Amino acid sequence: MELYTFFRSSTSYRVRIALAYKGLAYDPRFVSLPKMEHKRDDYLAVNPQGLVPALVDGGHVLSQSLAIIEYLDEVYPAPPLLPEDPFDRAYVRSLSQIVGCEIHPLNNVRVLKYLQGRWSFSDADRDEWYRHWIAEGLASLERSLLREQRHGAFCLGEEVTMADVCLVPQIFNARRFDCPLEDYPTVMRIFERCMTLDAFTAPRPNSQPDAV
Amino acid sequence: MELYTFFRSSTSYRVRIALAYKGLAYDPRFVSLPKMEHKRDDYLAVNPQGLVPALVDGGHVLSQSLAIIEYLDEVYPAPPLLPEDPFDRAYVRSLSQIVGCEIHPLNNVRVLKYLQGRWSFSDADRDEWYRHWIAEGLASLERSLLREQRHGAFCLGEEVTMADVCLVPQIFNARRFDCPLEDYPTVMRIFERCMTLDAFTAPRPNSQPDAV
Repeated sequence: MELYTFFRSSTSYRVRIALAYKGLAYDPRFVSLPKMEHKRDDYLAVNPQGLVPALVDGGHVLSQSLAIIEYLDEVYPAPPLLPEDPFDRAYVRSLSQIVGCEIHPLNNVRVLKYLQGRWSFSDADRDEWYRHWIAEGLASLERSLLREQRHGAFCLGEEVTMADVCLVPQIFNARRFDCPLEDYPTVMRIFERCMTLDAFTAPRPNSQPDAV
Repeated sequence: MELYTFFRSSTSYRVRIALAYKGLAYDPRFVSLPKMEHKRDDYLAVNPQGLVPALVDGGHVLSQSLAIIEYLDEVYPAPPLLPEDPFDRAYVRSLSQIVGCEIHPLNNVRVLKYLQGRWSFSDADRDEWYRHWIAEGLASLERSLLREQRHGAFCLGEEVTMADVCLVPQIFNARRFDCPLEDYPTVMRIFERCMTLDAFTAPRPNSQPDAV
């Protein structure tokens, strides 16, 4: 397997966690977002979406981190990242999508660049934008966890799922932008628990060979 | 089944298509986004995320449209909205997520309201923002389809999948904001084909009882 990855990309980090959790080895291919390598022709020839991560397995190129994680769970099912019960699966996917569809898309690099380039956002404006969506999204995640009361050590009971795989990189992003996190104690307890596991710590951004 | 829906919500429309395609009946519960009914306590008691759609089935409340569609496909598998082969499934999910994670999150109502309320975007600014992300996202979708050359009448061959279920409502949104669409002939050919099917036309926004 080959993984096109950038150390600070939280969607790349999600896939690195999933691979580590399942004990799957891969050859990394580093794609620097600051250097715009994801928009170069040689990378667009790999992934026409021009985004990281991309995973190459069995001669196929897979894109979009949540799609990649679902694929890994189907083809390399042990240990699972989705539970068996359909309602549980829907719950885990919904929590994952709070991060994947409600927080991260608003805060990724291309959006921040557009706000600053086209709309003249200052660095302070950009940071306020960033923290706004972090606060909205993490509040929603915290409310959902508290309402359902199905969390244990992790988002769903005592086993790691895709929801945890999405939660952890989002907290790394939040900390990078100095977002206050004290209003999300349930989320943060799960984060701290995840960070006791090698599958989450080994692939963390600053431990990556391309970290600068 | 009960579906909490708003006629113009493209994520609600996705789920309405999936239900129609599978021939599943439901009782609609209308939640007006302009009236902010999705933020009222009675709705937050249903879905703490404060978003439509939400589906109630078997006593469980399901949220996030892509999670709901995956659930429907697992529990009501015929006709399927995901293919069988893991690579095909990953491809369909990736195309779905171009819409679900790259286009729609940037253009939904709460983002537009925040741009206008906090950042003083004029209506013209808002529309430029909207069209920018439509253009970026549909270009990515068009490139992906052309690169893979796996489309037929639909995004993947000759059968409807979740990717088509996501594509169609996004085009409705694009048209509502007068986005130019001539650069995406493959996407638009698939859209037109979908709109020959009852499962796509019956649940369209303007045919809904809550359309105003």
